[in-house]
Amino acid sequence: MAVSLKVDLNCDLGESFGRYTLGEDAEMMKWITSANIACGFHAGDPTVMARTVALAKANGVAVGAHPGYPDLQGFGRRQLELSGEDIGQMICYQLGALEAITRVAGLRLAHVKLHGALYNLAASDSMIARVVSEVVYAFDSALILVGLAGSELTRAGEAVGLRVAQEGFPDRAYLPNGQLMPRSQPGAVITEPGEVAQNVLRLVQEGVPVNGERVRVDTLCLHGDNPNAIRNVLEVRRALERCGTIIAPLCEIVLG
Amino acid sequence: MAVSLKVDLNCDLGESFGRYTLGEDAEMMKWITSANIACGFHAGDPTVMARTVALAKANGVAVGAHPGYPDLQGFGRRQLELSGEDIGQMICYQLGALEAITRVAGLRLAHVKLHGALYNLAASDSMIARVVSEVVYAFDSALILVGLAGSELTRAGEAVGLRVAQEGFPDRAYLPNGQLMPRSQPGAVITEPGEVAQNVLRLVQEGVPVNGERVRVDTLCLHGDNPNAIRNVLEVRRALERCGTIIAPLCEIVLG
Amino acid sequence: MAVSLKVDLNCDLGESFGRYTLGEDAEMMKWITSANIACGFHAGDPTVMARTVALAKANGVAVGAHPGYPDLQGFGRRQLELSGEDIGQMICYQLGALEAITRVAGLRLAHVKLHGALYNLAASDSMIARVVSEVVYAFDSALILVGLAGSELTRAGEAVGLRVAQEGFPDRAYLPNGQLMPRSQPGAVITEPGEVAQNVLRLVQEGVPVNGERVRVDTLCLHGDNPNAIRNVLEVRRALERCGTIIAPLCEIVLG
Amino acid sequence: MAVSLKVDLNCDLGESFGRYTLGEDAEMMKWITSANIACGFHAGDPTVMARTVALAKANGVAVGAHPGYPDLQGFGRRQLELSGEDIGQMICYQLGALEAITRVAGLRLAHVKLHGALYNLAASDSMIARVVSEVVYAFDSALILVGLAGSELTRAGEAVGLRVAQEGFPDRAYLPNGQLMPRSQPGAVITEPGEVAQNVLRLVQEGVPVNGERVRVDTLCLHGDNPNAIRNVLEVRRALERCGTIIAPLCEIVLG
Repeated sequence: MAVSLKVDLNCDLGESFGRYTLGEDAEMMKWITSANIACGFHAGDPTVMARTVALAKANGVAVGAHPGYPDLQGFGRRQLELSGEDIGQMICYQLGALEAITRVAGLRLAHVKLHGALYNLAASDSMIARVVSEVVYAFDSALILVGLAGSELTRAGEAVGLRVAQEGFPDRAYLPNGQLMPRSQPGAVITEPGEVAQNVLRLVQEGVPVNGERVRVDTLCLHGDNPNAIRNVLEVRRALERCGTIIAPLCEIVLG
Repeated sequence: MAVSLKVDLNCDLGESFGRYTLGEDAEMMKWITSANIACGFHAGDPTVMARTVALAKANGVAVGAHPGYPDLQGFGRRQLELSGEDIGQMICYQLGALEAITRVAGLRLAHVKLHGALYNLAASDSMIARVVSEVVYAFDSALILVGLAGSELTRAGEAVGLRVAQEGFPDRAYLPNGQLMPRSQPGAVITEPGEVAQNVLRLVQEGVPVNGERVRVDTLCLHGDNPNAIRNVLEVRRALERCGTIIAPLCEIVLG
Repeated sequence: MAVSLKVDLNCDLGESFGRYTLGEDAEMMKWITSANIACGFHAGDPTVMARTVALAKANGVAVGAHPGYPDLQGFGRRQLELSGEDIGQMICYQLGALEAITRVAGLRLAHVKLHGALYNLAASDSMIARVVSEVVYAFDSALILVGLAGSELTRAGEAVGLRVAQEGFPDRAYLPNGQLMPRSQPGAVITEPGEVAQNVLRLVQEGVPVNGERVRVDTLCLHGDNPNAIRNVLEVRRALERCGTIIAPLCEIVLG
Repeated sequence: MAVSLKVDLNCDLGESFGRYTLGEDAEMMKWITSANIACGFHAGDPTVMARTVALAKANGVAVGAHPGYPDLQGFGRRQLELSGEDIGQMICYQLGALEAITRVAGLRLAHVKLHGALYNLAASDSMIARVVSEVVYAFDSALILVGLAGSELTRAGEAVGLRVAQEGFPDRAYLPNGQLMPRSQPGAVITEPGEVAQNVLRLVQEGVPVNGERVRVDTLCLHGDNPNAIRNVLEVRRALERCGTIIAPLCEIVLG
């Protein structure tokens, strides 16, 4: 069985950079329980990070690190051929950078979620999944590792002893092996609000099918960078309330 | 009185970047007590940082963060007009990044020293000196703040409650107010080994004259990126031994 | 006398970068005669540049290069301490980059206008003004150099033999020496549409006062990156029409 | 038949960046006929580019553009997933940047050769090969396109009407399809000088085997960034002289 009685709502935030503004962070913060904050490689800069952490604090939202490839122009969505060593150190670097800003703000880092092409790589490549899990554990073994439900990353995270959150995407189409359909394919991104709401229900009530098995979903990813972001998140919350699923932060869902 | 019975020897290391190699880090590590490791903004990258930390660990050298301007092309030596907020967050970011890599390597971050144009700005601008001191203290109040002897930064560091190390430069000419002569001026950089050795003795025995007063020197800055780097550091060590000054890490010199 | 019977309307465009969108380029192109296109250092990327050039072509707008400091995070608005050699080569690089994209699109580069902090530096520093003018002339002596009316740059441009366009800013306050009041000072940026329209009239009918003398204005700078951008440009056009000033591209105003 | 009576010697130069120095450019320039100059994306900066062009001019060496991925840390050797549009515009940008600096120095750009991972992609991907060939032709149809002998790129270059130079690598192992063995595989890079000299002879006398057919070699790639660079190039020149092959610039080899 893969029913989620409680689910966390996470969103990628802090994606502005210098003069460039992206996303409706202030509004999204009111409706989510976990903020994945960009760490300055694919998006964000130190000042944006600090302001986003402050916003999370003011709204009582848990702060997580959202490391990505060093590729601002591609927004971390373009695959880049890095060695395992480079990936491990690059993630460690970004974890520390955000942890420092979070610490100075008087908060604790709660979770880690990789971004974009790096997220996809770690979901499907077991070697990279292990490298990522090991560096997160070595940095702070109390962090919750968020990864694609039923993926190599959540498997590797559990293997090294991390608490792991299985993530579901209500606005993305899935492949039969549980991987996300690439954004380049038609139908990969679901924009119709009603369909998104239905996916939310299926994800929390049935989990994600991964090669025939069903994996529970601990957290739902919401997107904050499209014109309907706020309407969508309200729709998702309503759908959850209707079916009696409680919205709660990861630390109440993924126990040690 | 400004006599230093003990002095630390520090050097900027980890300044390589990707394919580009700079400095004789492996050799310098044998002769110094404190390594200031570049944090990826003016030099260094995450993998270089990790390798440099490992090298410091192998040689029993204390690891410090060496934050600089985000200016790889200018090597952090070009003044860049940043707000106080941007400077504070940018330093916090770099502190955290290196701290993460140091923590994963099983070490503790011991000190902080700013780099290049940022070092000079914080030495002379009291507002920036306060911003820097406050962010270092908020990040980790146990860190030792290394600054130009008798400068605004060491004054501000003491004011916020940090342990502070007064730094002297045996291969640089000083202005009467204790600031370093800019590199662009003739005679600013001293290359003659005999003269450098003499300066070492004067710095530890008499301190640095700052507007007529003498400020003690806790640590000497050695440079690792010139062809005579190793010969120079051996010369400096010999000069210190001859006059009976003990070479010791900062934590034994700058007490709480 | 400093009456402008004809005036060019220029706007900084192509300031998006990767995932980040800035400005209402498609709309602004309908109302201006000259587009200053960012060259990838302070804003813009190669693909954005090509799309902006295509937009200019479709609207019959003259294309100019808009080189800036290599500082995306600061949007080229932060002063950066560069040598004259570095500034000259960096401008040459950006001119060539945009010229290539313009050439492939079947257009000719018409003018050059520096951006942000680099614009201000060249307006007031005669050495830099000469370096800039010489590199522009050596690259393409047919280019029109746009600079702050009555500044060091327009003086230096004329001295090396370039055609020069004197620029006025209807939404900025001036200092008595003809320099712009820094954005950091209160009142530096004028947002009230009526006041902007009045300034337009004064600029074209009386020119800019520079140390007591009046300098004619060949081109007016409009800003495309604020919420009222389109309304403002329409207001400016109406004000010009009311007073009988003809809006024309630079090549019809600044003759050889 | 694939005999080369004349051959060009090319080398990647201008790979320094800011404070970082790479390669023995001044020495290599004495012995080669074509310099491929990095354009600031994977290596080089505007000032380095200008100095390298001046060095080529002083030595009578032909100047070519050497565009690469925007990845300084990976030195352009890491595959990066870009769209065809992004690749085309990014190459156009770099061509223009170097052309501007070359023009201001009083020279003409002679050829184009892609760098690293981008070189390999264009050698094997026919869609990218076409995009590259088309943008080079649109920018300047007189440029010589240098590509891996018998590859998709040289085929596409000829198809659009460019003069094409077939390149051979005496210090690299080949796969049966004419592609280079990836650097990550053992034996991919040949360091033994005697073996390199033998490869030179085979390349000019027999050409490169590509799927059973032999493709002539117009230019040999020499590497300038290893400790034996100068010794190797002298060895190569001696081997060519012994077998009567004339060393000549590309423009004398690849006729219109």
